[in-house]
Amino acid sequence: MSNILAINAGSSSLKFQLIEMPSEKVLTIGQVERIGLKESIFTISANGEKNTEVTDIIDHAVAVKMLLEKLTGLGIISSLEEIHGVGHRIVHGGELFNDSALITDEVEKQIEDLCALAPLHNPAHLVGIRAFKKVLPNVPSVAVFDTAFHQTMPKESFLYSLPYEYYKEYGIRKYGFHGTSHKYVTQRAADLLGKPIEELSLISCHLGNGASITAVKGGKSIDTSMGFTPLAGVTMGTRSGNVDPAIIPYIMEKTGKTAEEVLEVLNKESGMLGISGFSSDLRDIETAASEGNERAKIAEDVFVNRIHKYLGSYAARMKGVDAIVFTAGIGENGIEIRQGILEGLEFMGVYFDPSKNNVRGKEAFISFDHSPVKVIVIPTNEEVVIARDVVRIGMNK
Amino acid sequence: MSNILAINAGSSSLKFQLIEMPSEKVLTIGQVERIGLKESIFTISANGEKNTEVTDIIDHAVAVKMLLEKLTGLGIISSLEEIHGVGHRIVHGGELFNDSALITDEVEKQIEDLCALAPLHNPAHLVGIRAFKKVLPNVPSVAVFDTAFHQTMPKESFLYSLPYEYYKEYGIRKYGFHGTSHKYVTQRAADLLGKPIEELSLISCHLGNGASITAVKGGKSIDTSMGFTPLAGVTMGTRSGNVDPAIIPYIMEKTGKTAEEVLEVLNKESGMLGISGFSSDLRDIETAASEGNERAKIAEDVFVNRIHKYLGSYAARMKGVDAIVFTAGIGENGIEIRQGILEGLEFMGVYFDPSKNNVRGKEAFISFDHSPVKVIVIPTNEEVVIARDVVRIGMNK
Repeated sequence: MSNILAINAGSSSLKFQLIEMPSEKVLTIGQVERIGLKESIFTISANGEKNTEVTDIIDHAVAVKMLLEKLTGLGIISSLEEIHGVGHRIVHGGELFNDSALITDEVEKQIEDLCALAPLHNPAHLVGIRAFKKVLPNVPSVAVFDTAFHQTMPKESFLYSLPYEYYKEYGIRKYGFHGTSHKYVTQRAADLLGKPIEELSLISCHLGNGASITAVKGGKSIDTSMGFTPLAGVTMGTRSGNVDPAIIPYIMEKTGKTAEEVLEVLNKESGMLGISGFSSDLRDIETAASEGNERAKIAEDVFVNRIHKYLGSYAARMKGVDAIVFTAGIGENGIEIRQGILEGLEFMGVYFDPSKNNVRGKEAFISFDHSPVKVIVIPTNEEVVIARDVVRIGMNK
Repeated sequence: MSNILAINAGSSSLKFQLIEMPSEKVLTIGQVERIGLKESIFTISANGEKNTEVTDIIDHAVAVKMLLEKLTGLGIISSLEEIHGVGHRIVHGGELFNDSALITDEVEKQIEDLCALAPLHNPAHLVGIRAFKKVLPNVPSVAVFDTAFHQTMPKESFLYSLPYEYYKEYGIRKYGFHGTSHKYVTQRAADLLGKPIEELSLISCHLGNGASITAVKGGKSIDTSMGFTPLAGVTMGTRSGNVDPAIIPYIMEKTGKTAEEVLEVLNKESGMLGISGFSSDLRDIETAASEGNERAKIAEDVFVNRIHKYLGSYAARMKGVDAIVFTAGIGENGIEIRQGILEGLEFMGVYFDPSKNNVRGKEAFISFDHSPVKVIVIPTNEEVVIARDVVRIGMNK
């Protein structure tokens, strides 16, 4: 039996779960927000209760130290020796990592080299890695990459139709993200279908504030909607997804913005927020749409439309599909959205059962029993994949 | 009986056909190239022969004058009074035109206003319009817009997931192109299928050096792969099609290029040329691929992959499809490409018949007779649509 800390470090945040393995029991869950700002917020669950402390936490090192003190202080573990491994979620593994990796000095250096491809995320992850290394120097730590699962994509999927030198010299290609989630839910789907994943063609829809769709054939990602960055693909909360690339220079010319500023708009002021004009949260959008707000209705329609089309696209990609999986915030809870996405796919064997669709946040089949293509809601669990990978890679050495 | 000149004016070129209506007989066909440069080339067919003259043609007005002289000089018509109408292909009609339009002073002004959306094309078209107006002031002339057919797209198709103001203030939305071709081949498909187009769901694949795919439901375009500009959508000869928009600022940073320069690369050095490194012409690519050139093979695979996925996507968009149409250079002649695109679509009712696929440049069904979804090769004829619209709009006044 071993306890694994699953860590997701952002630039001003640190999310964590302590998971007992192999039982996969969550011993505690929590997060630190506003690191480096005034009135940082530390939240941690213990004995079924949520503990919140507001205090100034000046950096990640302090946040990590505080976390470890709380773990023992609240009696979640009795000493730090009961932490047997740490797993770090890393957004970008480039082409260097097609699996999770034990964090050695070399791997740390490689994650640093990949900062160019994920300038917002990888530097924050490194801060997290280093903070834990300092306080738990003898505990194995493992990097779990969002991109690794997609490294099985063939060239015709991952190459853009750009000068080939851009790929060779600058690494410009489709990487794909949310890999840990897509891997988890498709493996779980295979279990629920009672078939080896090697025999299945699955489409995984990870629909949260960020959203991506992946075609998983025989257990391998062969295509995914996100691209070189997590901006591409379908409409998201604040991200545009795919747009005609010629729009960027046009906006620059019309508004006087720099390319970086336009990119910022595409990442943070677009998507459902941009269309609706008031919210990136689908729940707000649905409420407003039902009250007659026209732009909210359009935002919802656009979101549904883009995902709906990807289902057809990836069914074609795999020459047919056995099951479609919905996961993450919207995928697990968006009853109307799932209905919108799934309607009209009978031509490809999807017979959606509205009467089964009234579920939120739990595993459920929502297709008719006779539907050749099954549709399944599966709550994602990236932390469990991280914990499993720490055990598999960090603890058998 | 009337004779219509169908004109396609580019910045340094002028393509023309003289078509007898309603028989739709082509009386002559030709083009002027290198207008404004030394050694311009004037080509015109007469009596089954091709006449070529190399001379300096300083501007479009001179080219038009020369064309009219040749028409009578070569005995194609006996006087200019035998030209009863002129139709101009215009790339961009924005949201102002959902049909062809008689060119009045106001329409000319509107086409001028739309130059912002098509800075390479509309100014050239205007030069053509004005040159003909000068020499044939009393002949009705009609503008036929590439975008008009797509004006039936609903908002969820044409709106990008960008701040809504960008649409309202700058007209940033999906317009779609090749509309004249998509309209022609889908109407022709309905004729060949013996069904009213109002009852059909069709996917039209216009695959030339530029390429676009359109979902046509009940005779109306409801979605199309090109976007705000003709850069978007599938891989083309030299155009990238869709790429993660975040790539533009990244290339700018890596290469020091301006946004406009990157856009130039995406338009002129990308697509199959960019991947293969040596040609934008699919025939060259296919030959090299068959001789073992790896990058040529990848370029071919990428091209096929993107179009293949659009077929699934647009089948989903229309909740199923009755027929798929191939047209334009590659669509009409690309035997291997069609095969690649069509393989593996049985899940959506497409049973492609390889034995019927050995056709180039003529109408043919290439699906099995029992295939629920028919696949048809139909040579496009934008000039005939132009001539028809001149008669319909310009001559019934």
